[in-house]
Amino acid sequence: MQLQDLTTPAALIDTARMQRNIRRMQQRMNTLGVAFRPHVKTTKCVDIAQAQIAAGARGITVSTLKEAEQFFAAGITDILYAVGMAAPKLRQAAALINKGCALKIIADSADSAAAIVAFSQASNTPFEVWIEIDTDGHRSGVQPAGEDLLTIGRLLHQGAVTLGGVMTHAGSSYELSTPAALQAMAEQERSLCVLAATRLRSAGLPCPNVSVGSTPTALSAQQLEGVTEVRAGVYVLFDLVMANVGVCGLDDIALSVLTTVIGHQKDKGWAIVDAGWMAMSRDRGTQKQSRDYGYGQVCNTDGQPLDGYQLTGANQEHGILSSTSDEPEQDITTRFPIGTQLRILPNHACATGAQFPEYHTVAATPGGEPEAGATWQRFYGW
Amino acid sequence: MQLQDLTTPAALIDTARMQRNIRRMQQRMNTLGVAFRPHVKTTKCVDIAQAQIAAGARGITVSTLKEAEQFFAAGITDILYAVGMAAPKLRQAAALINKGCALKIIADSADSAAAIVAFSQASNTPFEVWIEIDTDGHRSGVQPAGEDLLTIGRLLHQGAVTLGGVMTHAGSSYELSTPAALQAMAEQERSLCVLAATRLRSAGLPCPNVSVGSTPTALSAQQLEGVTEVRAGVYVLFDLVMANVGVCGLDDIALSVLTTVIGHQKDKGWAIVDAGWMAMSRDRGTQKQSRDYGYGQVCNTDGQPLDGYQLTGANQEHGILSSTSDEPEQDITTRFPIGTQLRILPNHACATGAQFPEYHTVAATPGGEPEAGATWQRFYGW
Repeated sequence: MQLQDLTTPAALIDTARMQRNIRRMQQRMNTLGVAFRPHVKTTKCVDIAQAQIAAGARGITVSTLKEAEQFFAAGITDILYAVGMAAPKLRQAAALINKGCALKIIADSADSAAAIVAFSQASNTPFEVWIEIDTDGHRSGVQPAGEDLLTIGRLLHQGAVTLGGVMTHAGSSYELSTPAALQAMAEQERSLCVLAATRLRSAGLPCPNVSVGSTPTALSAQQLEGVTEVRAGVYVLFDLVMANVGVCGLDDIALSVLTTVIGHQKDKGWAIVDAGWMAMSRDRGTQKQSRDYGYGQVCNTDGQPLDGYQLTGANQEHGILSSTSDEPEQDITTRFPIGTQLRILPNHACATGAQFPEYHTVAATPGGEPEAGATWQRFYGW
Repeated sequence: MQLQDLTTPAALIDTARMQRNIRRMQQRMNTLGVAFRPHVKTTKCVDIAQAQIAAGARGITVSTLKEAEQFFAAGITDILYAVGMAAPKLRQAAALINKGCALKIIADSADSAAAIVAFSQASNTPFEVWIEIDTDGHRSGVQPAGEDLLTIGRLLHQGAVTLGGVMTHAGSSYELSTPAALQAMAEQERSLCVLAATRLRSAGLPCPNVSVGSTPTALSAQQLEGVTEVRAGVYVLFDLVMANVGVCGLDDIALSVLTTVIGHQKDKGWAIVDAGWMAMSRDRGTQKQSRDYGYGQVCNTDGQPLDGYQLTGANQEHGILSSTSDEPEQDITTRFPIGTQLRILPNHACATGAQFPEYHTVAATPGGEPEAGATWQRFYGW
């Protein structure tokens, strides 16, 4: 199928780039001697998770119980639900476990741990719980050197649920942009998570799994001693935020939004395209980074970036494409005539993908235009 | 059903507020003597469009052809597709017209008009086209006093498609915040659109419809002489951006996101909730307004705002709830214990609603907790 035949806006995945990204991460993990558990929240797409598993991933990470349900239904059983468990969700988690899903849940407070233990006993559900560790102060987790860690560990272990290990996510790595800072953050994430594991074991508690990761730290870690597995999500597609962080190039970004020019404001040097924020998402993650890409980098249909052209504004179904130079583009109507198709690289692949019910795979053809191939469904909601 | 029984995050609609918002707008339009054509892109929900029509709306406005298809399938035939038509979408539009949909499309360039005429003649499809007018410089449309208007009008009329009228959207009204400025913008939108209609008629061209509108201008216009219909979308639910613009109060906002507290970072004064940006959207529309609400205003389950508490940060499935005061909240864990349900008012109802497959209606019960009622489906994609 030609790109011309797709309804725009459409989410395209360059499968050659995606497979290269998958191989790069898996080979890195193999070299570092750890298992890899991809975070499937980025794509919520069974076809892509299967490609990650085929390359060597062991199990998946999810951000919602709906993801756990959907991927379990597709045959994937080893699932870590990496958002702190609250009591109202225990029934839904237990239903999955009782169907045979090897679901692991996480806790970072004595209150949550106590609720899990109580529900486990009342319902006779064999929960496996990992303790979330805060290694960079950016969000959740208990302090690796604090008393809460041991309190929660004892509560869980004595409560006869399986204490499966510790996990952390150094999400503040997204705010960095030099190899030295990224390597230091990866080492901080590793060492503090291993510290938590060591303290649990010293207290006589089990801690078989030590799970760390974010895309930037996974691609920057120099050694992972004491770690058993790494998690990462956005690496599979990459995006402009990751390019600014420095862990990919623009030519690694596998997700783009196909759009059509629908009008102009010639005096302002604007082309109006049919990819607004409903397609790109409202994510402006590059705004505070070294290079601000507006709502996305404009490329031709081959996926080649057109230097200096961005989506500089977005309404719901209108994107404003303009030059980033101070002077309005003089020949915007001849440069981008109505009907022209373009591809836009997104700030944030997780947010942009979530706006679409499906991805269309796209591949270069020998000496010709890229062609659309398969349609891969993705899901949303909770 | 109790709110406790809903999976969080969930999108709630307070139907009493929604019906009040619908009545307020319709009564205003009746008083001003114009028809009202709601923009259903805000909700993409047949149940809500039917409530708007029951109150007196005539026809609907859509932002995608998928919306046109879905609402036509639900029995609504009078539909204005208010995004500039590009040639690749003509086949999809023609299919709707050939099924009996009274679809109107828009154009703001000679190129688009010529493409519509050519397709109409080749396919023998009776298109009705309205010309988009730029009345505030914020996005699309032709200048009301310029030559392009008449060129496009002649092209369409002589091309034997139906020239149905002119339409405009003063979207820059979202950037205003005083009654005087809003009234002036409403008058600018009206007068310039009427000018365009007058010029077409003076040139011997038909122009039966003169369509204007945005929620802020629709609620601010003092008179609408020469206008035949008004369009508005977000008024049906309202949001924090509209509260800052000054056209609603917080107690008019009918959309909220039900969320559950899942953890804390006590030293920082944070409660972690399960509404992150995947639920709230990345929209930060209040950032540049008089009052910045972060990712949303925190309310109790009755919908009463809890002054000084906002979602101050958001990851994909984690929201960070904190006090807006400079000092970290000391008793965050006792103020918002794990498992506490809260409702978050959104910055932008169109963006937040789009993150959910469905709305749950909610209504106060006599002397008791609010209860969830119906589930209303909404759709997405293109």
